[in-house]
Amino acid sequence: MEQHHSDQQAILRAAGAVFDELGYDRATMYEIAVRAGIGERVVRFLFPSKEDLALAVIRAQIALVDIEPQELKLQELYDIAQFVAHQMAFDPIMRGAARIVVEQSAQHLDRTQSMHGWTTITEDLLTLAREHGELQSRVDITKSAEIFVESFVGAQTVSQAFAGRRDLCRRISTLFSNILESIATPATYERLDLSPGRGEVVTRELRIGQHGAPPAR
Amino acid sequence: MEQHHSDQQAILRAAGAVFDELGYDRATMYEIAVRAGIGERVVRFLFPSKEDLALAVIRAQIALVDIEPQELKLQELYDIAQFVAHQMAFDPIMRGAARIVVEQSAQHLDRTQSMHGWTTITEDLLTLAREHGELQSRVDITKSAEIFVESFVGAQTVSQAFAGRRDLCRRISTLFSNILESIATPATYERLDLSPGRGEVVTRELRIGQHGAPPAR
Repeated sequence: MEQHHSDQQAILRAAGAVFDELGYDRATMYEIAVRAGIGERVVRFLFPSKEDLALAVIRAQIALVDIEPQELKLQELYDIAQFVAHQMAFDPIMRGAARIVVEQSAQHLDRTQSMHGWTTITEDLLTLAREHGELQSRVDITKSAEIFVESFVGAQTVSQAFAGRRDLCRRISTLFSNILESIATPATYERLDLSPGRGEVVTRELRIGQHGAPPAR
Repeated sequence: MEQHHSDQQAILRAAGAVFDELGYDRATMYEIAVRAGIGERVVRFLFPSKEDLALAVIRAQIALVDIEPQELKLQELYDIAQFVAHQMAFDPIMRGAARIVVEQSAQHLDRTQSMHGWTTITEDLLTLAREHGELQSRVDITKSAEIFVESFVGAQTVSQAFAGRRDLCRRISTLFSNILESIATPATYERLDLSPGRGEVVTRELRIGQHGAPPAR
């Protein structure tokens, strides 16, 4: 069981790296097995097809988001976006999922799972934000969630093309600040920390929360 | 000269269609020549490499945008976005360019040309909008242009994944209305027509302008 779990993680990370570098079409099960340092038969036992593996990487991306709850739900929404943006600089699962979700290559791959997942997370947080009185009354939660998801996808794609995603946190800060200003009550908006460095901050807080202390460098 | 021009157009349309269906990596000069009904040697004479062809498709996408000027520059900006969104439903150059710009496949292909082009067009219109008193005074033109371009790219990508771009005009309407409300003066915002059908309207106006009458069906 323990072995299976760590094999699975190694395969998902290797698959993320290969999808990130080669895209879905050119990625092969063989290449992923080699990178994971695991026999191709074991890989195929755990993930029968490349499509299964791609969907697992997409699900793993969403599962990686596990930040500390925040008092302001709009802050939590912003922090999740910045957490993902920050992790995309180095985490192979985040990077691989980002590429296969955006690309048209695999027509039969259901890429919408990812966007549905992010939309649901966003709608849930906006609903809580409304209950806590953080939203202007005219805000349409479904439309706003759509705007957040599309904006993230757009910033990620443009940042990838211009700077290999190195300016993604700055772009998310600009874009999300603009959206949040148009939906938050002025009192809530004033209390939000919309700096581009939030992703790094919440990543650090998460590590402290999990291990009782920051990791030694 | 005349022959060259029509060959060039046929090749660009064929290249757009092949890039749209197969993406940059899997597209071949041979396939493009076959679709265009033109010998591969002629194609290679006009466009020495697949990269040249991809960049020509990207430039052609921007050149296709040639709508009638509008009194309100923010209306013109919105109309251009809707024109492109509308054309993406059927125009092979618009579709092909959209796919290769978003995809990471061709690492050596300078996809930023497209985003720079759209950013410049947007900045120019926002500058005119400012001169005409259409913008709120605190608006940062560079940031706003970035937000428009990222939002369009995001809406296009999400719409492609969910609905083969069939709901793109609706998504652009929601997204751009939200941004425009945050940058336009209230008096200007009230005068904007932000319906999803503007792309179809300006396409029709353009045809009348070019030919003196709408095309026979």
